[in-house]
Amino acid sequence: MFDYRSIATEGAARTGIFTTPHGDVSTPAFMPVGTVGTVKGLITEEVEALGAQVVLANTYHLYLRPGHELVRDLGGLHRFMRWDGPILTDSGGYQVFSLADIREVEDDGVIFRSHIDGSKHTFTPESVMEIERALGADIIMAFDECPPGGATRDQAQEANRRTLSWLERCRRRFDELEHETDVPKQALFPVLQGNVFDDLRLEHARQFQDLGEWRGFGIGGLSVGEAKEDMWRVLEALHTALPEDRPRYLMGVGYPDDLLEAVARGCDLFDCVAPTRNARHGTVWTSEDGQVNLKAARFRDDTRPVDPGCDCYTCSRYDRAYLRHLVVANEWLSVRLLSIHNLRFLVRLAEQSRQRIEAGTFDGWRRDWLDRYRRAEDVGSDQR
Amino acid sequence: MFDYRSIATEGAARTGIFTTPHGDVSTPAFMPVGTVGTVKGLITEEVEALGAQVVLANTYHLYLRPGHELVRDLGGLHRFMRWDGPILTDSGGYQVFSLADIREVEDDGVIFRSHIDGSKHTFTPESVMEIERALGADIIMAFDECPPGGATRDQAQEANRRTLSWLERCRRRFDELEHETDVPKQALFPVLQGNVFDDLRLEHARQFQDLGEWRGFGIGGLSVGEAKEDMWRVLEALHTALPEDRPRYLMGVGYPDDLLEAVARGCDLFDCVAPTRNARHGTVWTSEDGQVNLKAARFRDDTRPVDPGCDCYTCSRYDRAYLRHLVVANEWLSVRLLSIHNLRFLVRLAEQSRQRIEAGTFDGWRRDWLDRYRRAEDVGSDQR
Repeated sequence: MFDYRSIATEGAARTGIFTTPHGDVSTPAFMPVGTVGTVKGLITEEVEALGAQVVLANTYHLYLRPGHELVRDLGGLHRFMRWDGPILTDSGGYQVFSLADIREVEDDGVIFRSHIDGSKHTFTPESVMEIERALGADIIMAFDECPPGGATRDQAQEANRRTLSWLERCRRRFDELEHETDVPKQALFPVLQGNVFDDLRLEHARQFQDLGEWRGFGIGGLSVGEAKEDMWRVLEALHTALPEDRPRYLMGVGYPDDLLEAVARGCDLFDCVAPTRNARHGTVWTSEDGQVNLKAARFRDDTRPVDPGCDCYTCSRYDRAYLRHLVVANEWLSVRLLSIHNLRFLVRLAEQSRQRIEAGTFDGWRRDWLDRYRRAEDVGSDQR
Repeated sequence: MFDYRSIATEGAARTGIFTTPHGDVSTPAFMPVGTVGTVKGLITEEVEALGAQVVLANTYHLYLRPGHELVRDLGGLHRFMRWDGPILTDSGGYQVFSLADIREVEDDGVIFRSHIDGSKHTFTPESVMEIERALGADIIMAFDECPPGGATRDQAQEANRRTLSWLERCRRRFDELEHETDVPKQALFPVLQGNVFDDLRLEHARQFQDLGEWRGFGIGGLSVGEAKEDMWRVLEALHTALPEDRPRYLMGVGYPDDLLEAVARGCDLFDCVAPTRNARHGTVWTSEDGQVNLKAARFRDDTRPVDPGCDCYTCSRYDRAYLRHLVVANEWLSVRLLSIHNLRFLVRLAEQSRQRIEAGTFDGWRRDWLDRYRRAEDVGSDQR
């Protein structure tokens, strides 16, 4: 359980299989975000039909509403949301630092106010492990401090120190909870911080491994506003610093081009709210035209699918003219149909990456794909 | 085409089959509302799975957005919204009188301002026939004046007069458009007005029939705030005044209990936005507990389906605890899942009515059903 088996590599890019109690995950894989126990607007059959293998849920949100103890009493998150496949829960760290209204960060933990009703709560490494245990996801993330993009070296160092000490406490509490059963039910992934400072990143990676074995690693604190080159450089530095036989989850990434760049640098798991958030604004990804907004007048009588090469439900069934109408009329069906398309777009990019890496043709394919996509983006931005 | 064949009657209640170019409609039937060419949030496969046979679309909305000419150029409404079954379009009269911002009502037609952008438009009987022709629904409604609930006898009389004169003009323009083809593609239904005044209702029914043959009749101007007894009395008066061999569409009705009462009084077709509007507020219909709002704390850990006797997707798959969580968290999936349940609830009530009328057991069943539903409503209102 929780083994990562490599199938093929091409340069730093890897394809493999990660085993969980709720099924295998072929990597690279994009994980749709199911914030409060629902991939926004979709039923789980639709998520499955996208080819999604794992869904992510947010500990912070589920802790506040409906409450982790209720989810546990109702049979755990899989049962609650009717998803039998693997689930990953984040630690709530990112949300506490970005969403919650007021907070005090101490070595013991974080005191914050709910963004819903202002009520006061405390997360400690121990309490987060208990919450994630109650939710019952297959992969759970350790409680970390994620400094904002643009943090100074001193801030990054301080966040690293705290994240490391919290990780030790997470591990201890996790082991206590895990020892209640014979077979491992959950894998705890630590979250690497260090912002854009390569040496801090490498130090964190070393310190984590000094603490013992891990089933996989989260790479946090990227895609928070730094320059793209900084992100790629950090990933390149981490590639050899992390064990080959463990999956690497690049948290919060990403857009189609970022996903391919990160796969090329050895990342295996991805999540991002962009597919559904973009759908809410009528924005879709296409292989030929890059990212486009369907509100544009030129789609008014366009009877082509969103992306003629796409195999998603939306593209197999509806045309741009109808979808544009739904977007312009603020009809919720547009959000649903465009979410399906955007999610499938990323899930399929990861699928295609797996196939290409196995065939040893990933790098050329990736370069061609990115060239075409970025060229279309440039044309598109002229038309917008 | 457009024949109504009676299968059985029980008292005033009737079951039969109405033939349209896009398929037969077994009556009584509830028609989901697809305002701008989408039953809110649902794909057409889901609408079909509900057992819905006809969907309704709103002429006023489609005229404003995306425009009837565009819909025609894209192949008509069936093709546009990917629904191969029968469609009914209303005439826009009701929306113009209730939604549009500013209006002048003249004998020639109605001048109104769009509720979307304030732009100025005119509907005449002739233009509405052209719009409905362009949309291409199977059943189209004549342009009528619907006076508000609580209108005086004089106002009702004046609206009747105008509706009658508009009907003649609708008929003329409809015939011109229809004669362009060999087979009838559309059936024009007139809309009976007369508010709660029985004699005006009967006079209107006579006047309509003096104009010639109709494929069916709309009964408008009810369920607009009048007392329930007034509605039932008007329907009872109309029952013998309308030809037996034509379907009767009671416009804008209704809630489950109203639907059963109207079936008992000889009505065949129904539509209402309540199933989807209630879903947006977390309100559902159940056979045992009447109408309930899932936000109530007692559903927090309730692992029963919304309605244990229901065969809809939502009830077969999810429990009240999860649905309540989605409602409380304002997740759009709740609207979708509760819409499916509420729509299926009404579609099934119509189905059960057909079966019961055919078996000659409708009346007793209806009384028992209404007793149970209303008793539960009373209990429910104590708990709310």
